[in-house]
Amino acid sequence: MEQRKLKVAICGYGNLGKGVEKGIRQNPDMELVGIFSRRPAEELDTTSKVLSMENIEQYQGDIDVVIMCGGSANDLEVQVPEFAKYFNTVDSFDTHARIPEYYKLVDEVAKSKKHISIISVGWDPGMFSLMRLYGETILPQGKTYTFWGKGISQGHSNAIRKIAGVKDAKQYTIPKEEAVERVRNGENPELSTREKHLRECFVVLEEGADEEKVRNEIVTMPNYFADYDTIVHFISEEELKEEHSGMPHGGFVIRSGITGNDTKQLVEYSLNLGSNPEFTSLVLLAYARAAYRMYDTFWEPGAKTVYDVPPSFLSPNKREELLKNLL
Amino acid sequence: MEQRKLKVAICGYGNLGKGVEKGIRQNPDMELVGIFSRRPAEELDTTSKVLSMENIEQYQGDIDVVIMCGGSANDLEVQVPEFAKYFNTVDSFDTHARIPEYYKLVDEVAKSKKHISIISVGWDPGMFSLMRLYGETILPQGKTYTFWGKGISQGHSNAIRKIAGVKDAKQYTIPKEEAVERVRNGENPELSTREKHLRECFVVLEEGADEEKVRNEIVTMPNYFADYDTIVHFISEEELKEEHSGMPHGGFVIRSGITGNDTKQLVEYSLNLGSNPEFTSLVLLAYARAAYRMYDTFWEPGAKTVYDVPPSFLSPNKREELLKNLL
Repeated sequence: MEQRKLKVAICGYGNLGKGVEKGIRQNPDMELVGIFSRRPAEELDTTSKVLSMENIEQYQGDIDVVIMCGGSANDLEVQVPEFAKYFNTVDSFDTHARIPEYYKLVDEVAKSKKHISIISVGWDPGMFSLMRLYGETILPQGKTYTFWGKGISQGHSNAIRKIAGVKDAKQYTIPKEEAVERVRNGENPELSTREKHLRECFVVLEEGADEEKVRNEIVTMPNYFADYDTIVHFISEEELKEEHSGMPHGGFVIRSGITGNDTKQLVEYSLNLGSNPEFTSLVLLAYARAAYRMYDTFWEPGAKTVYDVPPSFLSPNKREELLKNLL
Repeated sequence: MEQRKLKVAICGYGNLGKGVEKGIRQNPDMELVGIFSRRPAEELDTTSKVLSMENIEQYQGDIDVVIMCGGSANDLEVQVPEFAKYFNTVDSFDTHARIPEYYKLVDEVAKSKKHISIISVGWDPGMFSLMRLYGETILPQGKTYTFWGKGISQGHSNAIRKIAGVKDAKQYTIPKEEAVERVRNGENPELSTREKHLRECFVVLEEGADEEKVRNEIVTMPNYFADYDTIVHFISEEELKEEHSGMPHGGFVIRSGITGNDTKQLVEYSLNLGSNPEFTSLVLLAYARAAYRMYDTFWEPGAKTVYDVPPSFLSPNKREELLKNLL
């Protein structure tokens, strides 16, 4: 399509923002305009241009899409409605239960300002959401299973860190092999929370803290751990840093259905990610391309999700090339 | 959206047409108007209404979408341009090398008659095409691998049947486990045709035919077998019927890429299908729903592919429900 490069900006410079910065270098049809940050430029470890969060409207016309890299808990609900006034946006809002209200919030602003805001992009929500949709529409009689891991859950790690006596912690979500095998065999089992995933925690204690007390607080914590088999290891700060500082993740979406006279059909999508934020960043960038295509070809403005985006809009290649080389 | 049911017709009553007929019963928002066939109604083993291939224009207004179930070799190029004059269509044209010219042929008619014709729908082309696109756009630095099988290849089975002295035959395409493992390990190997797949043939000979002569003709057949390791078994007609009359198939699309500083990322989509035609039929039905949505909401008419279809159009559920329950 265009020869011009897609002008991308980043808002927020944590793991995700850093991933987007690296990801743009892998996409030759994109260029980074700059990084919006609340922190002063000299505090950011980057050679990219740092843009001020004050008076963001001054950058209108210089940026095609802003990738919103703040957290779902505090940042996105404030920042995205603000940025959607002036720019097309893509974000990874991932509090599943609150997506409908978040959608409305963003939709209202984006619609009134005639921008495209693709929300809840990444791998779950995101690619896994797509696979759940494809699975259940193609095989209407069946069950869908989502397994996460093995990977670090930021939310669960943070929950452990808040316990008195805990200095630092990492928590891995691990799918139970037996459950996965039963699903892959087409048994369509009813699986309880406990049967699907295991939680393994690596905890560094403050000096003098009581192991058994902390262990008990973890394994009985409602919502986070009480409904799971939870394994707790106490390790040194050095070991945590050396062995558990990566950010691998992954998981599977499996649709197990039947057709005709009880014929088993199984569809599985799996991710094995060396870095969760780097993968998420690249999904965000593909959807940034789509957001601009929708904007540029006068789609109805407003909030969108991965369900609204024609797959061809994600690609830098022309439609004819896709037909010829990839279909 | 509509309370009304989607009015679907089938053209062609082979394995695929029969699969669509069964598949409609799994989709409560659809109804079967009838089956177009060149054969007289009494020769078709069905209780569905049989529609005449003469004067198909008389059914305009009674049918929302016709699922074209003929073969790619002889039927679709003739039938789809004819049906696209009067109806929206979906087909599974699968001769990859000829898709661009087929696209043009169908596009011209569908555009001029203001219909939507989604071509090359199924699992490959179809779902696998989608996965290749998602894979390479999300992970621009990487390699895509498609493996097929274990499953019966109709084309290869037919090629064997044409050899003098062969009464019947089935050929299984089998991915080589070692190659799949290397790809899953993120080695990104260059794989030759021979390294990726094995071909296993079950052959029933005519009386008095020469085993070694037939075996040699098979394993040296250009394009079909010469570039592969090929195993040939000679069996009885009864054994072929008992052990090899199912139509299982499947395969994987794997995208193996790197991000950041050489971080490995692996995405895999796999199908394990008890019945290839029944699965393909259900993909066709989901895209029939989409074809009508595009038609009904005034999308630009013409030929489309899976790359053009917003995923939400495949679902019978409302957008708000998808946001709430599936995203």
